[in-house]
Amino acid sequence: MTQDAPRQRLARATLTCLAEPGDAFLGALLRDREPAEVVAAIRAGRLPAGPRPDHDRRAVPRALRRWGARIADAPSESDLAAWHKRGIRLICPGEPEWPTQLAALADAGPYALWLRGSADLRHGCLRSVSIVGSRAATAYGAHVGTELAAGLGDHGWLVVSGGAYGIDGSAHRGALGAGGQTVAVLACGVDRPYPVGHAELFELIAADGALVSEWPPGRPPTRHGFLTRNRVIAALTRGTVVVEAGLRSGALSTARHARDLCRPLMAVPGPVTSTASAGCHEIIRDWGAVCVTSAAEVLDQVAAAGDHLPDRQHGPVLPHDALDSVTARVLDAVPARAGAGPAAIAVSAGVDLDTAIRCLGALAAGGFVDRCDTGWRVRPRRPPRSRG
Amino acid sequence: MTQDAPRQRLARATLTCLAEPGDAFLGALLRDREPAEVVAAIRAGRLPAGPRPDHDRRAVPRALRRWGARIADAPSESDLAAWHKRGIRLICPGEPEWPTQLAALADAGPYALWLRGSADLRHGCLRSVSIVGSRAATAYGAHVGTELAAGLGDHGWLVVSGGAYGIDGSAHRGALGAGGQTVAVLACGVDRPYPVGHAELFELIAADGALVSEWPPGRPPTRHGFLTRNRVIAALTRGTVVVEAGLRSGALSTARHARDLCRPLMAVPGPVTSTASAGCHEIIRDWGAVCVTSAAEVLDQVAAAGDHLPDRQHGPVLPHDALDSVTARVLDAVPARAGAGPAAIAVSAGVDLDTAIRCLGALAAGGFVDRCDTGWRVRPRRPPRSRG
Repeated sequence: MTQDAPRQRLARATLTCLAEPGDAFLGALLRDREPAEVVAAIRAGRLPAGPRPDHDRRAVPRALRRWGARIADAPSESDLAAWHKRGIRLICPGEPEWPTQLAALADAGPYALWLRGSADLRHGCLRSVSIVGSRAATAYGAHVGTELAAGLGDHGWLVVSGGAYGIDGSAHRGALGAGGQTVAVLACGVDRPYPVGHAELFELIAADGALVSEWPPGRPPTRHGFLTRNRVIAALTRGTVVVEAGLRSGALSTARHARDLCRPLMAVPGPVTSTASAGCHEIIRDWGAVCVTSAAEVLDQVAAAGDHLPDRQHGPVLPHDALDSVTARVLDAVPARAGAGPAAIAVSAGVDLDTAIRCLGALAAGGFVDRCDTGWRVRPRRPPRSRG
Repeated sequence: MTQDAPRQRLARATLTCLAEPGDAFLGALLRDREPAEVVAAIRAGRLPAGPRPDHDRRAVPRALRRWGARIADAPSESDLAAWHKRGIRLICPGEPEWPTQLAALADAGPYALWLRGSADLRHGCLRSVSIVGSRAATAYGAHVGTELAAGLGDHGWLVVSGGAYGIDGSAHRGALGAGGQTVAVLACGVDRPYPVGHAELFELIAADGALVSEWPPGRPPTRHGFLTRNRVIAALTRGTVVVEAGLRSGALSTARHARDLCRPLMAVPGPVTSTASAGCHEIIRDWGAVCVTSAAEVLDQVAAAGDHLPDRQHGPVLPHDALDSVTARVLDAVPARAGAGPAAIAVSAGVDLDTAIRCLGALAAGGFVDRCDTGWRVRPRRPPRSRG
């Protein structure tokens, strides 16, 4: 970490206060600039120097006004310290706990994430599944959500959901009941989780897992925020299961993100005589979501790359040939035994640190590399099981 | 019909009495020979002259002995006449009522079919769907089977099933309740339908639809016969829907035939908390069966080739290029306006009658041609609906 790091972290914390999450224009500005430079420009009411992202020209002054109007909300170092005392920490892209798979969101990725809880988000999410569904769950849906999450917890997988009533709540509770970790990705500050009826549940989640948000502490939820948040639920995990969803359920927006990110998308069928599962049936029929009925079937989809399924061959899901040349170079730079850190790998591969981190995330998702205590290393290949 | 036709019909009736349906060796013998010639050879305890089908040599004497042992069951012209008086008729390949789509079964196709009922089997089955499922149906499955069949009946589609308790019965009843035609394909004589508890239902089916069997009148069902029969259910129809089936349900054998015949295969999902729908979920996940929840969704699959769905484009489902050269020649011989009979089309295409009939069936299934009062004609193409 450079001496400049605290300043850049504070800048990213500031951006979470100024801008709505997922702003691709802001994301594009951050692609080529340090966050502090972007914040300084916003304070000055102008665009930062350097290449200007391809964007609607009329939108730029509007965005600057919008962000500038909130500049009084910008936190100070002492705010961060005070939040930290209350158990709220900030993680930023490139830091050890930053989940590499969020790189799949590209310019729409979070500027930073606020966390409350004991889990290591990056490590936990490497083996995680999101379970989502309607708030207005039926007894059937709640039962299935609980059972699925418990089954995943039993196998050491982390369950990510949105902390809402209905299916989300059943998923968190099922995971907790099985002694598994669970993460709630919220659309409001992690210190004032919504809905309040889940206050006790949120404490249980934070105890062993984490509450995660793109919004700064204290921020109340907005209607639109829930949809924005859903992309993070999909991007954090190895796959998404829709347990019960009507045709217009918000859970289908998470499903759409999972599909668009090319992550395994699954849905649990239900009685066709109820409309509560109509969205699940639709995405099975029309989007190619896999019809799953048990945790084992979910693991069959997300653990295809290996991961402790005893009767599955470990190894990459993609052939080496399918990697682009930069990713292949990064893979070549990953040591086979003792791990290496991203910076060392970046130097060895001749790429910048961000590229190395993005490629390592893709390689991990593809089953080529694993994280270990000392950094990254190539996943050992097992020979195919002999037939006979 | 040639003067020889009654003799060949009696020979086919005889074969339904001597051999088990679906015997591919017998089917191969019939490929190159008149049925009467094959029956005469069986009577003489030898193989008929001519090319010998590629087959296990030890199986041939066994087959001849097996068929010969039943020669006393061979019906006479007066038997056929007596059955006809009781409303039981025989239809043979190449005859006007023979469903051309059975040609897809090739050598495993029926030698002939016994019918009781008022429906024209060929015409009815051109717009038909089979609905199958467990005998041990739940209230949910029975309800869905009834509703689906009624919805298909409402749209003028014929429902084919197996006449059994459970889903089969609900499908027949649903079709009847909507005033639609329904066909029961039985694994026993059409004069002694099984199960006896469905005797009244079978009379209702025969009144406006048909009871169909490969076995001669008077024959009781055998355990194996039900599985053999399932291929005819799949082959008669444009698509197969499994409404409710456990993992070992016989309905999955019908589904397998539908899949192997490349006919649309569909399944209705159900609660994952019951094992009654586990077979449906399995074929959705692993066989690519389409998840359907309503008659409209079923029609969406089977009527893709056109057929009176007002908001769908009429026309072939396959590009013309995908046809093999013989089928393409037959299509070229089909007139665009006034229909032509198969014999005229065969002469014009330079193929034999059987080939012409088989190709016409494939072309009809592919949406290229339609039957009309005067024979076959090319289906008129509608322009794609304009977007706007």
